[in-house]
Amino acid sequence: MNQPALSAQWIGDEHGHLRLLDQTLLPSRQVMLDCRDVETVWEAIKMLRVRGAPAIGIAAAYGVLLARVDGNSADVASADRLAEQVAAYRKAADYLATSRPTAVNLFWALDRMRRVLDRPIASIESLRHSMWQEAVRIHEEDRQMCRAIGRFGAELIPQSATILTHCNAGGLATSEYGTALSVMFTCAEQGKKINVYADETRPLWQGSRLTAFELHAAGIPTTVICDSMAAHVMQTKKVDAVIVGADRITARGDTANKIGTYGLAVSAKYHGVPFYVAAPSSTFDLTLVSGKEIPIEQRDQGEITKPYGIPLAPEGVNAYNPAFDVTPAELITAIITERGVISPVTEREVRSMVGSS
Amino acid sequence: MNQPALSAQWIGDEHGHLRLLDQTLLPSRQVMLDCRDVETVWEAIKMLRVRGAPAIGIAAAYGVLLARVDGNSADVASADRLAEQVAAYRKAADYLATSRPTAVNLFWALDRMRRVLDRPIASIESLRHSMWQEAVRIHEEDRQMCRAIGRFGAELIPQSATILTHCNAGGLATSEYGTALSVMFTCAEQGKKINVYADETRPLWQGSRLTAFELHAAGIPTTVICDSMAAHVMQTKKVDAVIVGADRITARGDTANKIGTYGLAVSAKYHGVPFYVAAPSSTFDLTLVSGKEIPIEQRDQGEITKPYGIPLAPEGVNAYNPAFDVTPAELITAIITERGVISPVTEREVRSMVGSS
Repeated sequence: MNQPALSAQWIGDEHGHLRLLDQTLLPSRQVMLDCRDVETVWEAIKMLRVRGAPAIGIAAAYGVLLARVDGNSADVASADRLAEQVAAYRKAADYLATSRPTAVNLFWALDRMRRVLDRPIASIESLRHSMWQEAVRIHEEDRQMCRAIGRFGAELIPQSATILTHCNAGGLATSEYGTALSVMFTCAEQGKKINVYADETRPLWQGSRLTAFELHAAGIPTTVICDSMAAHVMQTKKVDAVIVGADRITARGDTANKIGTYGLAVSAKYHGVPFYVAAPSSTFDLTLVSGKEIPIEQRDQGEITKPYGIPLAPEGVNAYNPAFDVTPAELITAIITERGVISPVTEREVRSMVGSS
Repeated sequence: MNQPALSAQWIGDEHGHLRLLDQTLLPSRQVMLDCRDVETVWEAIKMLRVRGAPAIGIAAAYGVLLARVDGNSADVASADRLAEQVAAYRKAADYLATSRPTAVNLFWALDRMRRVLDRPIASIESLRHSMWQEAVRIHEEDRQMCRAIGRFGAELIPQSATILTHCNAGGLATSEYGTALSVMFTCAEQGKKINVYADETRPLWQGSRLTAFELHAAGIPTTVICDSMAAHVMQTKKVDAVIVGADRITARGDTANKIGTYGLAVSAKYHGVPFYVAAPSSTFDLTLVSGKEIPIEQRDQGEITKPYGIPLAPEGVNAYNPAFDVTPAELITAIITERGVISPVTEREVRSMVGSS
């Protein structure tokens, strides 16, 4: 398998820099953005050049490291230089936190970076090294989590399987392998010849723009279909599994994910196709039991009626644009987490797998 | 209810002209095209300004009438003038037949017009009148057929119903009321307060561009949704019926219709929502029994990957673009024809309703 496209990489050691894949130019152009100062990282997060909660957190953590005070001037007392560097890091963390005001992973990652600054510090060099180590750790933990999901998931997928997926639960949103796509990358790594149908995922086309891009870059045979074709594909072709990601999962396993997931689950049930959700344990919200308690974000009607500015519906006609839907646990064959596979999907099994942190 | 938008109207008596709604400009602009010569009609059919099998047939029949030889010059013997007019009509019919080479209704309508020319003819005036009458009859028969479908269908729809539809089975493709939309127009006419969800219908957006346009023009409250939202709407809102059109129906009732119809039927079954197909008896192909015998047209991948020239998938990635899918009879609650309602949908009931012409 080819290496999947990486959303964020740190180039070099603690004196290095951050390299982001500019996702706003996908799928037409694959342009890398080298970030050597905090402002460039802030702009990249703000403008969605890097997107997906884990990837944003990773980019921000590395972004803090770019707030370097000049470390080579011998004329400043080392204690002053150290204080200056701590202040610069803090300022960078505060600044980066303003880039996407609702991104939970962003705040979480920046808090981890700030906690390093709270520890006793021996020298500016060791501070820089510790900060770099923490960012690398955040990145690595995400990578390991995705890899673990991939390993557990791949055990469920037979040789030569055809897999159908919806939206983008891939590496572009995370460190490398993603969640649902991690299962596919791991299958390919293990030498399983898989084929993937990727729902285009209206209204924002994450399936054709991002998922197809990632799978194609990794050399996995991929066919894009319109969302409405999934049932026909299950009816007329051999589909062995549906695998999707999740935005939020309740204690009984009801799963909120990109709009269209629920219809896909209904169709999978009708055709006897296993329906898998792949998500880290951090996606579970055990304070909720039923999926009916999950609030559904309503998005702008223009995403449906005027994509890319093209008027596709008459003026004055309403559109309804829920961002997510909720798939009840009954329709989910298994939930694949980094701790293991939850199946059957019941409150008892969910709490037993992810109930303690 | 407001008058629905008309795809084709004849303005005036036999000396009048044809007025088409230029459907290529929908939904942004509603422009009427007055056709006073055969060439303009030919171009309108060729360029899809008028589309839908019945509407094309009607436009072509009226188009023949525009081949008028100068009828007021007294210096030509009346027999010569008559022969000249017959020749001009024939030439127009032959010419119009070249506009859309695979449109069955086009040939059928032009043949009906030609048969008038084969009858004994008394005078140029009576010829012109007879030709006009035949075109009006073709138009009127289609209108009556659509109206009958509407009446039979409306009996199945309760007061204050919410209806979900897919693609465009409306008046723009026919004379006035269409098939699936005729049921909705008739409900509105009868004073039933209905609400309609219209699937946008990827890849060509007939739902948002045409169905929403027609329903909105008629004053029926309409909400456009992405195709993938239909299951979520059935899950969370009260949907009383799904009504769709059909391209071809087999003897056992298996129905080929726009891609996405099958997934909608699966979802309707899961949610206990009645699923209706509305189509004239001419849609039945009794030489086929199983829907598996219906060939599925495959269309250009670019409709999925580059709509309106916008690249939505990476270069080199495949797309699969079947134009239709087949919904098995088991998922269809009833088929609404101009002769009555077929329910349950079995070979016995189908043959009994549409088996004789």
